[in-house]
Amino acid sequence: MENRYRIGIDLGGTNIAVGLVDENWSITARCTLSTRAERPAREIIDDMAKAAETVMAQAQVEKEACLSVGVGSPGTCDEKTGEILYANNLGWRNVPLAQELQKRLGLPVYISNDANCAALGEVKAGAAKGCRNALLFTLGTGVGGGIILDGKIFSGGRSCGAELGHTLLMAEGEPCTCGRRGCIEAYASATALIRDTKREMERTPESLMHAAAEGYGKVNGRVAFDAARQGDPAAKRVVENYLRYLGEAVVDMINIFRPDIFILGGGIANEGAFLLEPVRAFAARYAYGGALNPLPEIVCAALGNDAGIIGAAALEG
Amino acid sequence: MENRYRIGIDLGGTNIAVGLVDENWSITARCTLSTRAERPAREIIDDMAKAAETVMAQAQVEKEACLSVGVGSPGTCDEKTGEILYANNLGWRNVPLAQELQKRLGLPVYISNDANCAALGEVKAGAAKGCRNALLFTLGTGVGGGIILDGKIFSGGRSCGAELGHTLLMAEGEPCTCGRRGCIEAYASATALIRDTKREMERTPESLMHAAAEGYGKVNGRVAFDAARQGDPAAKRVVENYLRYLGEAVVDMINIFRPDIFILGGGIANEGAFLLEPVRAFAARYAYGGALNPLPEIVCAALGNDAGIIGAAALEG
Repeated sequence: MENRYRIGIDLGGTNIAVGLVDENWSITARCTLSTRAERPAREIIDDMAKAAETVMAQAQVEKEACLSVGVGSPGTCDEKTGEILYANNLGWRNVPLAQELQKRLGLPVYISNDANCAALGEVKAGAAKGCRNALLFTLGTGVGGGIILDGKIFSGGRSCGAELGHTLLMAEGEPCTCGRRGCIEAYASATALIRDTKREMERTPESLMHAAAEGYGKVNGRVAFDAARQGDPAAKRVVENYLRYLGEAVVDMINIFRPDIFILGGGIANEGAFLLEPVRAFAARYAYGGALNPLPEIVCAALGNDAGIIGAAALEG
Repeated sequence: MENRYRIGIDLGGTNIAVGLVDENWSITARCTLSTRAERPAREIIDDMAKAAETVMAQAQVEKEACLSVGVGSPGTCDEKTGEILYANNLGWRNVPLAQELQKRLGLPVYISNDANCAALGEVKAGAAKGCRNALLFTLGTGVGGGIILDGKIFSGGRSCGAELGHTLLMAEGEPCTCGRRGCIEAYASATALIRDTKREMERTPESLMHAAAEGYGKVNGRVAFDAARQGDPAAKRVVENYLRYLGEAVVDMINIFRPDIFILGGGIANEGAFLLEPVRAFAARYAYGGALNPLPEIVCAALGNDAGIIGAAALEG
């Protein structure tokens, strides 16, 4: 039997999603478990190994038919040593993840940052299929940045760069989780959108956002978009501000990386054209060199959470 | 005779500097001429070819002993086709520079952006000698960014990226020459420093900056630094602001590229330790991951204008 399967693991602060990925980058078996990040790292790694065995068993695939295991991890990874340097939402510091998992599974294990894996997944099988140079923002709790250059993940000179969400939009602006003020993450994440939605709701008791929030039971990243679509002026202000910030962040990364394609993922990307059209117009207007330089396509991610599994499976040494 | 020389050309809006560079990256003969950018591109290219022949003649080096010619150009270059896509300060659009120069000289010609060449020059023979991953800011009229990854120039997915000076520091901030507001260039260039010096001088007629400016005959990038060193409070405010902006810009690029070394070049880098120490302290405090991630060395450029010639000579296909 040929070695034509790979195992992809998307390690998150809440859940661990494991998939068996075939040579066409389809997930043929999958398994999800709770991370319970408060546990010792050793136990979590044990569970990851078991889940990998589970998906092989589900698909009746022998270990010998598997090429490798890849893990997309939050936080900072040293891809060369296979170590997680630190991951706040796991509480990990210097965990030799690849080595430990390799011990348990007897397969080569590669690791990378989760946003990088999502970008690689979209390049292998999703919205950027076949592209050599792609950039991805995950617009979620934070803003993750994934960079594919010449078909490969770019993670900075010392494997701990590519922190696109932690570059400035606004010096001395909103506080960011990283200790600076004004990072892209503090303006373009779902968390930032929710903060700005709440602020605008406080100022405008008549806004339709209040009803929208009640419908969801809380203020989430959809409240302002929903109310804006109904014509609510306060919600429109929130959305327009958000889209301008996102546009600025996209232009920054176009000016640096000039990718073929720019992928927007994460929860907020579900807004689709309502999000894409203004960002495209902003990029066309403000990217350096304007029409003289090639503008990347700007699209929404296609694979959802599967991108992380597929991209992790696609990691190589 | 071996092919052990290379010709490096630093094409600027005002001057063209040409050097014959030996295998140890020393400039063994040089020649400078006025660009007179208002002329047709053809004439300028003729002059570049003649200057290349002049430096070979000066050093009594035959064309056969030369490996290649490299040109560092302002503006946007397509390194693959050898075309200058556009260069505002030359008034050039789609000039097939490499092809035209190659026709005249009968040697392979390579081109790249001038800031990239400066970075490559510092890596070959200057402040970053031997480094694999280096980043350079030229702090001059604008802010140029040069990126060396794994020993090679990185110029973005489509050869017209790496415009580090045109990423944001301050959304909706000071107007930038590129059409956006708030770019790094609008805060960390000498032009920005001079703007802020003038503003502060208007507010503070008692400031020592007035005497310093008279000494130079005009307000330049040194006025605020000179007066700050004499303890002038208004000048200190200008310098502290400038250094904070520069620190933010440096941290942004560390977070993205995580280089081994960060080089500050251009006129303002002549301030030396007065510039370096606060930027180093800022980076240590605010770079993503703090002490958990490796911090690059932050140094001043060592080669001055020669970096552009040496880096251009080091260009390869």
